[in-house]
Formats: sequence, structure tokens, C-alpha cells
Amino acid sequence: MISLQDCRSRDGADTLAPLRHLFNLPEGMIYLDGNSLGALPSAVPHRVAQVVAEQWGRDLIGSWNTAGWFDLPRRVGDRIAPLIGAGAGEVVATDTTSVNLYKVLSAALNLVEQAEDEAGGARGTRGTRGTRGTRRTIVSERSNFPTDLYIAEALSRERGWNLRLIEPHEVHTSLGPEVGVLMLSHVNYRSGAMHDMAGITAAAHAAGVLVVWDLCHSAGAVPVELTQADADFAVGCGYKYLNGGPGAPAFAWVHPRHVARCWQPLAGWWSHARPFAFTPGYEPAMDITRYQCGTQPIISLSALDCALDVFTEADKLGGMPALRTKSLALTDLFIELVEAHCPGQFELVTPREHAQRGSQVCLTPTHSLPAGCAYAIVQALIARGIVGDFRAGDAQQPDILRFGFTPLYLSYENVAMAAQGLQEVLANEEYAQPRFNRKQAVT
Amino acid sequence: MISLQDCRSRDGADTLAPLRHLFNLPEGMIYLDGNSLGALPSAVPHRVAQVVAEQWGRDLIGSWNTAGWFDLPRRVGDRIAPLIGAGAGEVVATDTTSVNLYKVLSAALNLVEQAEDEAGGARGTRGTRGTRGTRRTIVSERSNFPTDLYIAEALSRERGWNLRLIEPHEVHTSLGPEVGVLMLSHVNYRSGAMHDMAGITAAAHAAGVLVVWDLCHSAGAVPVELTQADADFAVGCGYKYLNGGPGAPAFAWVHPRHVARCWQPLAGWWSHARPFAFTPGYEPAMDITRYQCGTQPIISLSALDCALDVFTEADKLGGMPALRTKSLALTDLFIELVEAHCPGQFELVTPREHAQRGSQVCLTPTHSLPAGCAYAIVQALIARGIVGDFRAGDAQQPDILRFGFTPLYLSYENVAMAAQGLQEVLANEEYAQPRFNRKQAVT
Repeated sequence: MISLQDCRSRDGADTLAPLRHLFNLPEGMIYLDGNSLGALPSAVPHRVAQVVAEQWGRDLIGSWNTAGWFDLPRRVGDRIAPLIGAGAGEVVATDTTSVNLYKVLSAALNLVEQAEDEAGGARGTRGTRGTRGTRRTIVSERSNFPTDLYIAEALSRERGWNLRLIEPHEVHTSLGPEVGVLMLSHVNYRSGAMHDMAGITAAAHAAGVLVVWDLCHSAGAVPVELTQADADFAVGCGYKYLNGGPGAPAFAWVHPRHVARCWQPLAGWWSHARPFAFTPGYEPAMDITRYQCGTQPIISLSALDCALDVFTEADKLGGMPALRTKSLALTDLFIELVEAHCPGQFELVTPREHAQRGSQVCLTPTHSLPAGCAYAIVQALIARGIVGDFRAGDAQQPDILRFGFTPLYLSYENVAMAAQGLQEVLANEEYAQPRFNRKQAVT
Repeated sequence: MISLQDCRSRDGADTLAPLRHLFNLPEGMIYLDGNSLGALPSAVPHRVAQVVAEQWGRDLIGSWNTAGWFDLPRRVGDRIAPLIGAGAGEVVATDTTSVNLYKVLSAALNLVEQAEDEAGGARGTRGTRGTRGTRRTIVSERSNFPTDLYIAEALSRERGWNLRLIEPHEVHTSLGPEVGVLMLSHVNYRSGAMHDMAGITAAAHAAGVLVVWDLCHSAGAVPVELTQADADFAVGCGYKYLNGGPGAPAFAWVHPRHVARCWQPLAGWWSHARPFAFTPGYEPAMDITRYQCGTQPIISLSALDCALDVFTEADKLGGMPALRTKSLALTDLFIELVEAHCPGQFELVTPREHAQRGSQVCLTPTHSLPAGCAYAIVQALIARGIVGDFRAGDAQQPDILRFGFTPLYLSYENVAMAAQGLQEVLANEEYAQPRFNRKQAVT
């Protein structure tokens, strides 16, 4: 059995260990919730103060040019691009994941409808809804992050499409001739299960289906190769593994083969070919700029820009491949320790196979523990400074304890201490204490 | 003729003068561009630093509850509400103006279609596009801010509606039986002309037309009475007269009679009745929460929240009515001085009538000045520390010099100095200097 001393030795040999010093982490806290909100990079407070006092306060409107505010969504996009296997000029950091999903999913629907119009010889005018094509179904997973489903439901209703929800194992068999778009999260927010992006994309394309990937739990956490996988569209989050701060702008990527071929309906002035010509008529930009809409929150976007410096440092130490190796070592270790110290008390929800695992570990209590104790276990851990989170179950899925492992700032010792804390919470039956059973709004 | 000494006397008697000390304005600058980007309120740097270091860095994910991040869009909305004549719980501060316009304009179209479906006895299912109603036209002004027109154009295309662009004097005569929605900016971004919100809304309603108001150049600048005017929908900007910082989140208002009666398509999880139930199916919130979509940029939104403290202070000194009185006095003074000191050299673009004037003054050079000199005049003024902006003309409208007058931080002396600067730029023919004629990206 691996000891605390062994873990400390592994930390001593961890070439990524210096990255931890690029973050301001609260003293004594083991933060296993970076998959919900990434920790604060140490350089961000100064950058934000500078943006506020100098760019806004001193230079005012001139900063649109001198501080490059106007290009910031594309500059930040260019910094995210290598983390997701995309090229320069292909990513824009803007708006929220939900809004970006609405844009790219709309664009995907437009592409499908256009292709059918062209194939049918009936050159349809964009926006006419007269002819019904054969591919009018969006497929997604029932366990996808709900906002993705809500956006798809709204668009389906709006556009006369159907939304079909499936289970993870049904992805390949779901790709029938009525399906136009497959919309999946690469890594599931609850289970931490990761899809084979390249394999699924290839199967979808073979079936004539476009694929939209949600990278919220992937970007900065696991290697992503959008170009190599030949994906069509992707969106993702700036405030989880990219550490951009609460509600940091999200991002959108569109494969260059599609970007000028279809429009997206949130056609605000920032998506215009010449926004400062102030023409009354719309002319879409021919690149990823088309997926912008309105003026972006520069302070929050600057925090994200600064946070990405951490990945520049990580690149010098091996980049995403090295981070992935460490992430798997951390999650392997946590699984091993929990199974050793809490035998039979939890079932592993996250896949054991590396190829199917994101950067988190989810556990559900077995019947050896009192029913409904998952919430209180998480609260008892938080009281010990071990911060994970709880996700309530329903008819289809169990309650879970969710632990995110960010290799940028977590050590092997952290993992050992977290597993030990979990063991003690169970041994002391801390989950039975009333103070840990008072539910409050879950975030 | 009013003298500089007279202006200083007016400043001495100005009960709103103390508000200027709530802003960090660059030494020596006369900032007449608050209609583009409001100045930095002095309290914001500290608030932002606190949000970054404490709420994010120290309290991390817990701040969703302890710092009230989740409710922040509604709390900030409640603070904007009194500035626009709306009630508590009716406004949400979120996303961008363009995105919010897409939401409320979609909702307005849905309401019109629903009403026609109901009137026709054919109880239409939301989203079906089979039946064509008679009201399928959106009317707006050709000179409206372009992003509003682009969003309306996109939605019209998407929904099978028409967008008709008219001139300002055609508003009343445009309200034919084919019109479903009238979408106007209350104060025009170029000309500074202000519409009679109550009169136009009443005329529209009498003609069976819903009205969507864009308050970007109104909120915090002129009194707005949405409820009293019986308006239907409104959106507006956080970074102009509300001083929320570059790209601060925008806001949306929906009349309570409509809010639960129609849906909006950006149906992300923040618009859900129970977002943390994580249900796969969408259930819209029954209040203005329905007009949220995804997770908001908390740092930028907190800056806006803090900036609104200025209006709390202004309320103690008479609030919007007092600000309006001063705004009109400032713009009257500027017009008077420019006409006295630069006789015949400019034509006033902004209406002279108080009831039709926002909080800005726009001038266009007459033929007594060299053609195309407006840009260089603005640059020469900026070089003197007098910051206004330039808006290029086109076939329909002339080049303009645009000066925003924010009564929160401008003095009568500022106005006198600005007019004097303009006079000197003309007298010295500074607009002829090559350094002021090199155009760069205009923002």
C-alpha cells in the first residue's frame, strides 16, 4: 500500500510541482473542485487591477485600440486553441457556453438543412421552412450537462427539429439516417467519463452526421485534438480547468471548412465583417469572428487571458501530455487509496480505463452506508478543508461525490490526505452529524 | 455672453458637484465620451480586488452562496430598475445588449404569433411555422445602432418576418396592420435625438403593435419611465452612463404582463425554474429570471454593481430628475457657446428641444470648413485633453462630432473649456495638421 511518505517522494520527483506556486490557494485547503471553479492564478489580481485602473480609469475609450480590447476575444481564443488542438484564428473567447452552444448548434442545423437543400436540387433560401428534410434529429445524452439539453430543446422547438436523448453506450447505434447533428460533452460533468472524440466523430461523419463537442470539462484538463479528430464545432468553459475566474467568458471553435459556409443567428455587430462601418445591413465576417455577438466583459476576459499564462509555463514542462500523465496518476492514486481505505463503501462511477476517464473521480456510496449520506459526507469533508462537491441523483443516476483533480496545483500528498480525510469521515460517522445534513442551495 | 467666471459660479451652486469626487478621472482631461464608456467610479478598484482575492481566491466555489454570485444578475437588475422606471424583480443584468435584444425580440415575435394563433381559433403549437399571420413586420429606424438592426435582420430571416427600416419622422405613420413589433432606441447613438417613449408606445399599442426599447443611451442619462409608458420590452447597456466598465453586462426588462406568457430561445440553465435540480427537461422560470441564459462574468458584473453606488449617492441629491436638469443645462450651455464662438461653422444635429434631446450634443461641420475635417477636429481636441468622438457619415447622414455630457462628473467649467478648445482648434486650423488626419480603427 502506498504511504504518505511515498506520495511525498512522488511530489519531490514531480516536474510539474512548481506550477502550484502560480496559484493563490487558501492555506490548508485541498481544493478538489477545480472542475467547477478553477483556483486563482497568482498573477491575476495585479492584471485585473491594471485593467481597471490604467486601461479603464486612465486611458478610457482609447483602450479599445491601445490595450487591444477589441481583439481580445480572438487573442484569448488563440491562446486556448493549442489546448484543444485547434489552429490560430479558429477560436474566439466570448459570451457563455450556453450562448455559444446556441450559435454553433444553430450553425450545424443550418449546414444540414443547406446540404439537403443542395442535394435535393431545390436551392432553398436560408430561413425558409417550407421543405422538410430527412435529417431533422439532434442526438445527445440524457446525462449531458442540462444547459446543453435546454439549448438544444429550445432550438429544436424553434426550428422544427427533434431532440433525442440517449444513454452513453447508445451513441454509435443512434446514428440513423434521420440524425443531422450529434451533440456530446467530451467529458461528462457528473461521471467524469470521457468519450473517444476521434472514433465517434469518424463514425458520425460516416453516417452523414455533424458533431458538436462541449469541452467544458476537457479544455485544460485532458488533451483535446479537434483538428485531428476532424470535429465540426466545439464550445467550452473559461472558468473550470482554464482558471479564468467566476463566470469567465466561454469559447467557441468552428472547423475552418464550415466557418464561412453557414451563419449563426446571434448576428451582433462584433460578428460583422466591418463593425465600425456602422452599416445598417449585416455582412458576416468570414472567419471565427462571425461567432462573436456583442461587446465583451473586458475585465473578466482579461482575467482569463492572464490565467492562461499558467499554461504557457506548463508548456515549458511538457504541456498537456505531461499534465495528462499527472492527472491520471492523481486519479489512479485516489481510486487506489479510497478502495484500500474504504473497502466496499463506495462504488466508482468514473471509468477505471484511462482512455475513458477525464480529470475527476466520482464515487457513490454503497448500501453499506446509510441511504442519502453522500451530501453529508461532502459537507464533512469541506469542514476538514477537503473541497469536493455533491451532485444529487435521480431515477436514472445515483447521488455522487465528485472530486476534480487539477494537475496544475494538486500534489500526491493532497490526494493522500483527501483519501485519508474521507476514511476518517466514515470511521467517525461524521456524515450523521446534523450540521452536515442541513442542505443549502447547491452550486 | 456667459463667461468662464459665470460657469465657475454655476459650479459653485451645483448641488450635484460632489458626485464628481466619486470618479477617478484623469488629471486635466475633459471626458465627453461617457456615452461610449463611462468613467471609472473610485470605489470600483477596491471592490474588484476584493472579488478577485477574497470571493474567488479565498472562498472559491463557496462564493456562489456566501457572496451571492448566483443572485447577482437579479440584484444588479434591481438596482438598475429605479433608473428606468421598472419595479423590483423586473430587470436582470446579464449578457450583452445584442444577446438580450435577441431574447426580448424573439419573445415579442412569439407574443404576436401566439396572439394571432389564439385570435384565429387555431390554437397553434409554439414553434410551428405552418400558418402565416398578418402581422409579420418589425419596424425600426435606419439610423438605429447597427447591432440592433443586425439582430432584427437575423431574427426576421430565421422566423420568416420582414424588417422595415424607416426614418425618425415616419414612426407614427409606419404602424400599419402588417406590423407586429416596433423596435426603437430611446436616444439615438449618433444624433442624440430622444423619442417620446410614452406617446409612441401608446400609438403603437393603439395600432396593435408591441414596442421594444433600447435604452443604451438613456439608462442613467435621462429619466426613463418604462412602467408609466406601459412599454413591453427593453434592453440596455451597463458600460455607458451606468459606468460599469468596459463591456459590463447589459440588462433586460420585460413587462410583468408578458414575462411568463412567452418564452425566449436562449433557454440556458440560468433561465430554468430550478437550475440546480439538473433536470434534463427545460422548465422556464416564471419571472425575469427566464431572460438569463448562462453563467455570468462575476468580476465584470461586480464592477457594475459597485458603479451603481454612484446613483445611490445621486439619489440623495435629487436623483434622475436633478441629473436631467443638469444634463440639459450642460448641453444647452455647450450649444450656446459653440454657436457663439464658432458661428456658422457647425450645424447642430441633436434636437434643440429639450424633450427630444438625450445627454449628448452632436455637431456636423458646415461648408465653411474643409470637407471631411470632422475626424481631424476630434483628434485635435483629444490632443488637447478634450475627449469626444467621431462618427463617420454615409449617403444618408453627415460625419459628426459627438460629445456626451455626463452630469455625474462634468462641470460647467468643463463645458466652457471644451467649447473654447473647439474654437481654438478651428482658429488655429489644427484640423489641417497631418498628425490629426491619420485614421486608425475607430471605436
